[in-house]
Amino acid sequence: MNFPSKLIENAVEELAKLPGIGRKTALRLALHLLKEESEQTFLLAEAIIKMRAEVKHCKQCHNISDTDVCDICTNPLRERSLLCVVSDIRDVIAIENTGQYKGLYHVLGGVISPIDGVGPSDLHIESLLERLPGSEVREVLLAISPTMEGDTTAFYLTRKLRDQQVRITSIARGVPVGGELEYTDEITLGRSIVERTAYGKV
Amino acid sequence: MNFPSKLIENAVEELAKLPGIGRKTALRLALHLLKEESEQTFLLAEAIIKMRAEVKHCKQCHNISDTDVCDICTNPLRERSLLCVVSDIRDVIAIENTGQYKGLYHVLGGVISPIDGVGPSDLHIESLLERLPGSEVREVLLAISPTMEGDTTAFYLTRKLRDQQVRITSIARGVPVGGELEYTDEITLGRSIVERTAYGKV
Repeated sequence: MNFPSKLIENAVEELAKLPGIGRKTALRLALHLLKEESEQTFLLAEAIIKMRAEVKHCKQCHNISDTDVCDICTNPLRERSLLCVVSDIRDVIAIENTGQYKGLYHVLGGVISPIDGVGPSDLHIESLLERLPGSEVREVLLAISPTMEGDTTAFYLTRKLRDQQVRITSIARGVPVGGELEYTDEITLGRSIVERTAYGKV
Repeated sequence: MNFPSKLIENAVEELAKLPGIGRKTALRLALHLLKEESEQTFLLAEAIIKMRAEVKHCKQCHNISDTDVCDICTNPLRERSLLCVVSDIRDVIAIENTGQYKGLYHVLGGVISPIDGVGPSDLHIESLLERLPGSEVREVLLAISPTMEGDTTAFYLTRKLRDQQVRITSIARGVPVGGELEYTDEITLGRSIVERTAYGKV
């Protein structure tokens, strides 16, 4: 692609480094910024710089936070007996948005994936094992995506958590709400039958 | 959407103002920036600020440029007898990428669209009429999208250019390369027949 300006080319190249943004989209974004009030560009630049420079990770749960310990960990209204283990911050946001969970979280920061060179020591597993003894946590809910890597991670965690005085649970697997039985894969459909629940329970 | 951090929320809000980027995508971008080296975020912010602050518009053709007159206008190898009128800078880039055009450009900065409150005086039409007399331009090629607004703009321009000593041409309308006749709309197919060309001409 030929650009009429080195400044635009540079901006397009940086924008195109973002995930899911190709050079054509990056050009559209750059030209959009040029059309808008220049203040808009400065606000955007300031917001991402400020975020990158100042955002913290909660010392307890490794969630993103503006403070040393996050709002969820310090909230006295959250159930301290329930701890939900997720791989990513996005999962925390997704679960929070359901409004169905009132316990605490622990963010692993990924899943075990030998192909990508991610082992257990690269995740926040040690700090999970350290925070449990002496805490109020009675149940650890594993909310990890049911992929190969996710299942491996969950399996590793259950082994590590075996000696702790906690109940280990997992989010339900089954046919998604609005999904059609016919198009549901065999494994999911099979598990939804094996793990059937009393009708009208939820 | 509940965010664990005001800083992230702010960054997501600013990113989501970009066209085609919703809040979910914006969050993905923000979390991506948090995972990458912080230098990456600063480079991105610097690139867009620098672009917004320093980019210029060519005084002759209104194309984007790093200098007062753009590289195309100053290039002695371009044909000065041919002037291509486009609505947007993106069209210049698209035409340049074809490698088929060696003339000059004139960027209108939009199309006439009464619904959006854009009249002829909001476009760079006056400067087009001013640059023609005494110039080497012998042909004005209208390369404006064949939409209702585009056609209105083209019609307006042909009226305005009538008294100038230039030939007015338009990019060919027809069946796109790789397109199937069966799925081509009637108007396009009809025009491709009326404006048929000698076989093997291009």
